[in-house]
Amino acid sequence: MELLKNEFIKFIKERKSIRSFIYKKIDKETILSVIECGRWAPSGNNSQPWRVCIVIHPTVKRMLSELTKYGGIIEDAYVNLVIFLDLERGYDRVKDIQAIGAFMQNLLLGVHAIENIGAVWIGEILSKKDEVNEIFKFPIDKFELMGVIAIGLADEAREKAHEKERERRPLDEFIDWY
Amino acid sequence: MELLKNEFIKFIKERKSIRSFIYKKIDKETILSVIECGRWAPSGNNSQPWRVCIVIHPTVKRMLSELTKYGGIIEDAYVNLVIFLDLERGYDRVKDIQAIGAFMQNLLLGVHAIENIGAVWIGEILSKKDEVNEIFKFPIDKFELMGVIAIGLADEAREKAHEKERERRPLDEFIDWY
Repeated sequence: MELLKNEFIKFIKERKSIRSFIYKKIDKETILSVIECGRWAPSGNNSQPWRVCIVIHPTVKRMLSELTKYGGIIEDAYVNLVIFLDLERGYDRVKDIQAIGAFMQNLLLGVHAIENIGAVWIGEILSKKDEVNEIFKFPIDKFELMGVIAIGLADEAREKAHEKERERRPLDEFIDWY
Repeated sequence: MELLKNEFIKFIKERKSIRSFIYKKIDKETILSVIECGRWAPSGNNSQPWRVCIVIHPTVKRMLSELTKYGGIIEDAYVNLVIFLDLERGYDRVKDIQAIGAFMQNLLLGVHAIENIGAVWIGEILSKKDEVNEIFKFPIDKFELMGVIAIGLADEAREKAHEKERERRPLDEFIDWY
């Protein structure tokens, strides 16, 4: 089992953002298997305060893309998951937002588990959150935009060309032993 | 690769909270491999706004345990990871807290990857966050408590006795297609 353990840890550590996509259909079953990973994320009081709009239609993608400087990524992605906090299900602002973070991370890992596809978490669009609500006719007192996950077939060549070193702080900078 | 894909998705879906522990040492290397998973979590602007106090010493565990009704779990766990938001590294309240959620989920999955050990995310202690800061002499304007992850060797017998059905909302309740 040591091998398996290392495989899973390697899997978690190697997930990275993919921003360049080749247009190709991703079947509904695959999209659902990704969302199923999110579904099992933990949340305080098991409140599960998430709501997801699965955007495939070009017109809706275009409307979304106009609300962020990363619109090109949204348009190139086959599917965009638009994630909202369901304010009526929430019970504690900090814990609700943490739950959404865990949910979105599970979605990203779910994508990472599937051969050839990749995803990126777009947060910059939060600056236009009310406009995003309007697209889906979501009242702003009921749903709050939390981010978009753009998913598509990875364009390995373009990814390689723009590849940046993945940078993280060294462990010793943020841990202490007691 | 289909098999591997299914293995990873199964791995993510099957993670669950473990609240009953048998006291047994977990070596430093294992603890670090869990935190290494957190280290690779995504964060807005790659701000990585996390700070972790790794608590093994019985006196510090006792002090923590007195600040939550889940103190028994904290005392039984071999190690508790006390997670803070590093307010000076943060840049956007919602995105910082989401990043912490993603970080904590990666820690939980990192634990899940290791045979025989389990973990639970304790959020209730946030009601005593200033008192937790005092234990570590962390100024409240620099670090904000985000939660505790209690980790230990799973006591399978006690877990089984208290096992609750893991409940999640059906997918159709929180998704829409566009």
